[in-house]
Amino acid sequence: MDFSLSPELRALRDKVRQFIAEQVIPLENDERQSHHGPSEALRDELVARGKAAGLLTPHASRAMGGMGLTHVEKAVVFEEAGYSWLGPTALNIHAPDEGNIHLMEEVATPAQKERWLRGQVAGDWRSCFAMTEPAPGAGADPSMLDTTAVRDGDDYVINGRKWFITGAEGAHYAIVMARMEDGSATMFLTDMGRPGIVLERNMDAMDSCFTGGHGVLRFDNLRVPASDVLGEIGKGFRYAQVRLAPARLTHCMRWLGQARRAHDTALEYARKRQAFGKPLAEHEGVGYMLADNDMDLHTARLHIWHTAWLLDQGEKCNFESSRAKVVCSEAEWRVVDRSVQILGGQGVTGETPVMRIFTDMRAFRIYDGPSEVHRWSMARKLVHMAENAAAAKEVA
Amino acid sequence: MDFSLSPELRALRDKVRQFIAEQVIPLENDERQSHHGPSEALRDELVARGKAAGLLTPHASRAMGGMGLTHVEKAVVFEEAGYSWLGPTALNIHAPDEGNIHLMEEVATPAQKERWLRGQVAGDWRSCFAMTEPAPGAGADPSMLDTTAVRDGDDYVINGRKWFITGAEGAHYAIVMARMEDGSATMFLTDMGRPGIVLERNMDAMDSCFTGGHGVLRFDNLRVPASDVLGEIGKGFRYAQVRLAPARLTHCMRWLGQARRAHDTALEYARKRQAFGKPLAEHEGVGYMLADNDMDLHTARLHIWHTAWLLDQGEKCNFESSRAKVVCSEAEWRVVDRSVQILGGQGVTGETPVMRIFTDMRAFRIYDGPSEVHRWSMARKLVHMAENAAAAKEVA
Amino acid sequence: MDFSLSPELRALRDKVRQFIAEQVIPLENDERQSHHGPSEALRDELVARGKAAGLLTPHASRAMGGMGLTHVEKAVVFEEAGYSWLGPTALNIHAPDEGNIHLMEEVATPAQKERWLRGQVAGDWRSCFAMTEPAPGAGADPSMLDTTAVRDGDDYVINGRKWFITGAEGAHYAIVMARMEDGSATMFLTDMGRPGIVLERNMDAMDSCFTGGHGVLRFDNLRVPASDVLGEIGKGFRYAQVRLAPARLTHCMRWLGQARRAHDTALEYARKRQAFGKPLAEHEGVGYMLADNDMDLHTARLHIWHTAWLLDQGEKCNFESSRAKVVCSEAEWRVVDRSVQILGGQGVTGETPVMRIFTDMRAFRIYDGPSEVHRWSMARKLVHMAENAAAAKEVA
Amino acid sequence: MDFSLSPELRALRDKVRQFIAEQVIPLENDERQSHHGPSEALRDELVARGKAAGLLTPHASRAMGGMGLTHVEKAVVFEEAGYSWLGPTALNIHAPDEGNIHLMEEVATPAQKERWLRGQVAGDWRSCFAMTEPAPGAGADPSMLDTTAVRDGDDYVINGRKWFITGAEGAHYAIVMARMEDGSATMFLTDMGRPGIVLERNMDAMDSCFTGGHGVLRFDNLRVPASDVLGEIGKGFRYAQVRLAPARLTHCMRWLGQARRAHDTALEYARKRQAFGKPLAEHEGVGYMLADNDMDLHTARLHIWHTAWLLDQGEKCNFESSRAKVVCSEAEWRVVDRSVQILGGQGVTGETPVMRIFTDMRAFRIYDGPSEVHRWSMARKLVHMAENAAAAKEVA
Repeated sequence: MDFSLSPELRALRDKVRQFIAEQVIPLENDERQSHHGPSEALRDELVARGKAAGLLTPHASRAMGGMGLTHVEKAVVFEEAGYSWLGPTALNIHAPDEGNIHLMEEVATPAQKERWLRGQVAGDWRSCFAMTEPAPGAGADPSMLDTTAVRDGDDYVINGRKWFITGAEGAHYAIVMARMEDGSATMFLTDMGRPGIVLERNMDAMDSCFTGGHGVLRFDNLRVPASDVLGEIGKGFRYAQVRLAPARLTHCMRWLGQARRAHDTALEYARKRQAFGKPLAEHEGVGYMLADNDMDLHTARLHIWHTAWLLDQGEKCNFESSRAKVVCSEAEWRVVDRSVQILGGQGVTGETPVMRIFTDMRAFRIYDGPSEVHRWSMARKLVHMAENAAAAKEVA
Repeated sequence: MDFSLSPELRALRDKVRQFIAEQVIPLENDERQSHHGPSEALRDELVARGKAAGLLTPHASRAMGGMGLTHVEKAVVFEEAGYSWLGPTALNIHAPDEGNIHLMEEVATPAQKERWLRGQVAGDWRSCFAMTEPAPGAGADPSMLDTTAVRDGDDYVINGRKWFITGAEGAHYAIVMARMEDGSATMFLTDMGRPGIVLERNMDAMDSCFTGGHGVLRFDNLRVPASDVLGEIGKGFRYAQVRLAPARLTHCMRWLGQARRAHDTALEYARKRQAFGKPLAEHEGVGYMLADNDMDLHTARLHIWHTAWLLDQGEKCNFESSRAKVVCSEAEWRVVDRSVQILGGQGVTGETPVMRIFTDMRAFRIYDGPSEVHRWSMARKLVHMAENAAAAKEVA
Repeated sequence: MDFSLSPELRALRDKVRQFIAEQVIPLENDERQSHHGPSEALRDELVARGKAAGLLTPHASRAMGGMGLTHVEKAVVFEEAGYSWLGPTALNIHAPDEGNIHLMEEVATPAQKERWLRGQVAGDWRSCFAMTEPAPGAGADPSMLDTTAVRDGDDYVINGRKWFITGAEGAHYAIVMARMEDGSATMFLTDMGRPGIVLERNMDAMDSCFTGGHGVLRFDNLRVPASDVLGEIGKGFRYAQVRLAPARLTHCMRWLGQARRAHDTALEYARKRQAFGKPLAEHEGVGYMLADNDMDLHTARLHIWHTAWLLDQGEKCNFESSRAKVVCSEAEWRVVDRSVQILGGQGVTGETPVMRIFTDMRAFRIYDGPSEVHRWSMARKLVHMAENAAAAKEVA
Repeated sequence: MDFSLSPELRALRDKVRQFIAEQVIPLENDERQSHHGPSEALRDELVARGKAAGLLTPHASRAMGGMGLTHVEKAVVFEEAGYSWLGPTALNIHAPDEGNIHLMEEVATPAQKERWLRGQVAGDWRSCFAMTEPAPGAGADPSMLDTTAVRDGDDYVINGRKWFITGAEGAHYAIVMARMEDGSATMFLTDMGRPGIVLERNMDAMDSCFTGGHGVLRFDNLRVPASDVLGEIGKGFRYAQVRLAPARLTHCMRWLGQARRAHDTALEYARKRQAFGKPLAEHEGVGYMLADNDMDLHTARLHIWHTAWLLDQGEKCNFESSRAKVVCSEAEWRVVDRSVQILGGQGVTGETPVMRIFTDMRAFRIYDGPSEVHRWSMARKLVHMAENAAAAKEVA
């Protein structure tokens, strides 16, 4: 057992930390942001800074232009990047691109990679992942997929509606999940400029850290050539799993950085602000909250590291990534909520970054499957494992 | 013991409920709102509707033009008004005016009432309450008051800075709390147009339900004639208590309406949205959340009713209003958080009113004293009461 | 609305409080107790004291020899009695007799009342309620009833096993729930001395406040004449509801007394015990726990009072008594757990009564339906009510 | 980073697991136990079995007859041993001996080790640690030490009272903490048979897993020769820290085994027990509790492993062991409480081992410093570290 980071990884961590502090945080109050997120111009500047620092898209393979980080290395780097809400954009490791890049690396053909992935790794463009649908379609339950793809000559014709499509506005290409006539699902690649793709509107969301916001897309007879199918026909749900288990974990990593930022901000305030005769931090009630923050941060980090290490060993980690997702999203949320409480009025206004972190993070308990879906999935697996163990015992 | 509402009160409740449903909720998506709150124009329309319905400023005395509601009657009416975030504005019972009106009724001279209160009760203008200060001034600990008032001839000259001053922008008059040379505090009345009052900026706050937002005010040699002192010199802290105990409770009432709205929205969604083969509401995990919501709503209502009844008996209720404030702010918050979770993606976007309620309500755990201050104040009182009881026993 | 207690009720409350303090608490360390509960001899002494004080069986009708308390009056009296774990025994209002008396009053024939109820109200004997069964029989799900009753001439012949039968050992008579051939359930009355009733053993339980403990009973061809059927054939489940809704609430009342005792003990200790330079109670962290205790106690009391008042209005309160049961059992449990924590080592030893209260009370979150069953039952009701309201709206 | 266990450690883990299952669990219902814990005879049998299996006292140094386990190895072995409440006794790794052995290894002279430690490692006798005192002495705040040691010729004369002295009855020797005239503290070694040591009584405690229970000791002019001082005069508090940081962590390890046992028992029951038409485990509400159990168990294990690894690196871990203590004691407690809830009536009776685990474990949130003391200690450290970091920044 070994919890140490290699000297190289520590050096990389420190480099990212310094980059965020010096190159990214100063841009947090930049006006090129709306309640839908950083503008494309601000994104471009962030990406340029990340590239100049030699830190862009570090999780992509070396072949595609990245640094080929392992999962454990990602755990360390992404947490640092997450310390600013602009950090993941600056490193090109934000959702959904981070997960899309991973999926493309695993499943796309060499030609598809050259066409869509290489430029994305270089920071030249963004992508979106079109899976979630309005009722009665696919939400927390992906099997309710309503968007259809029908073969027509060498093409597939796609019809349906999607929403909560992060980064849709301004994306260069999309990965679209659609249902086949036999009930299976397939993933399609498409440039966003193709006829038949309509951005109906951008949703008014609580968070504001994603360039492009969250769009509502409609596909009106969108034609996609068979050569643009991602992977094999009918394997959409399987690929969604390929994408989701690590994507869940990278969410945990980035938000851990945000939670740490909130805690640091609250701790700094508590050290300095006087009330009832002494600094806030010397009030036991506040001290307990700071201690609880530290416990939750460390718990989240340990779950992330352990699951990342398992992924690096080649495990699929469906169970473990569900567990890490619930533990981290809830622990990190508690940290941010407590930090708001310590900050008092400053926690619910733009006087500190914590208000922003608070509203950005609430959705994390829902994204990538709400806690409830993961708890239930874990429960079934626990029962299943117990049944197998009992059966094995009886045989023996 | 009797938990029933009189027929008159039930009729009034139903009237307010209908008014909110038919006259107020349809305006919730009105564009005359910014992230600082409803515009003056929207406020004017809401007030006009409230007046036309005969429901304006119901808590003010009949002498001043209100309905002279008791605290218990307020509990019922304010909860109904709170069902829409625009409801309190439409009934002219929003913070801080609601509490200011109460304070003016208790403490102001007849002349002061005619000058400032009567028009406010009529909905003609708004007020603000200038107590909270940036560090190192008065926050959760009011004794740290930094703004000073110095006698100069027949006037007092006030200097200092205030922030989180709800409704400052556009207010007609202010109640200003300032420290005297002997360390005591005094409340002053002033028109907002007087020289020496500077609105430095409006803060960027998480909530957006208050017309005028939350301002930062500076007093530069603001001159207030002695005749505009509210009540007696040196009694500012005592009057703050007169205002705060019931004001805390009316916050609980209005937010109870908001929490109920969130719950109703989530329940409606859960009844209809399918996932994993059945409506959400038929999943135990969701059902438990709905049950917990009902428990928390009922708990909040019982605490409100009990404390309101005590106030109606003439009790000061410092302890009870602290208790109700903590219980209600935390219970109502849990309801809203669970409702967001049930709604999933719709809970964190403008697709339902719940996102708005969520961000509006977070500050309630801080306003009027954070939970931590009230818990500590309760603890001291509990110890004090136990000591008295022990002493009484020894004597006997 | 009125939260006041009548002068008569306040006088009765004070009388019970004094009785518990002077006549019951001094017996708490009496050696005539085992881990199964107070012995019959100790029970006899307690009942004699209760009778001498004129406080015995106050909830029974005046016709049967009780005081005919309303539900609200019971709320006040039972809380006081619960202040000692021996109090309910001394007032003859402990489970299961308290609920059995209520059921007998509602359903039994005059002859049955004279035979079994009158002496029970007089404190001469105890009863048990034989419903719960070991797997795969009726537990939290009463519909799984396995014990059978078959008509044989003028008799019914009962076969089956029951467990967790509180007070079985030493009980004078039992109410037995059995399944009929058509799947319905019937309640039977039987003296415990009849052939065919076997007390297999007494269970080793965490609590120790019930005389007779919790027994495992077996019925081997127990013959019960048709005249000893309680109420009508096939109405067993309905009567179980008649018994359960108020019985749940009286549990809440008695345990509220226990929780208050734990809190008072912890508060007393916190006032006196020094640590880190000041009394425990002057540590914020301890103060917060004391404040939380007060909030939980008051929440429980308000739910009890409200539900009791509704029962007094003739409401069935299936929903409300489920809600009160969950709220109270969880709130009161938190109070006791916090009190243990404040007391430190003394909380987990017999140095104070709180250890005993802690182990006695844990089962309350399970008795009368675990929280989970009630939450689910509430959820279904909430959905049902929302559906009715929606349907009514559509019609209108 | 590496979370794997070496093949040797896995083999040792499996061996202990098998030993507990085959040699220890079958003795759990052995009658040679009282509410004070296993009798000396039962302990002797357990120790004999542990010795026969080659697993006795594995944490002691090889020089003293143990296996010289590292902290990480202890983490794995102690969790397995803890799976039965008799397991730590069988491996001679129970409190307080486990910690005393560690302290003796670190501080005792060679002669002291031969006299007291070697036989203890061999399982021949037990020891106790006499630090805690009744009010107004040392409890959670060790600085309030009241027991005094006064030099008298070549001896020290000790006077005072101690309580909660685990294993005092039947212990062979004691480590006694006493206050010197200058206010410092010293540890003394003494055979328990010496004149002046009086076991006043054994306390009635909630737990029952420690041979010898928890005693109240009185020292009446106990004479201890200077050669029996443990370590140096005046360093008692420092040695208490040497003992406590790892001792806290071994508590976490052993109780993790108990929590896992409770979870396994509940899972087994939930798979088999039917209610409302399906096995309990297929109810979402129960499934969520099982998932939460798994999360808490894994969280505890990760904190233990990480802190153990740090100790193996030579870190003192005062902060980390406080953190692990709070996290583990609370997480493991939640697991056991949920397991009781899932088991329903069986959770609060001796039908399963979980009732016993529940009552045994409650004190763990208090032993070795209650959560409140550790939270506060963590808070001060967090503030201190932040101040140092801020100061370093200013310099740079």
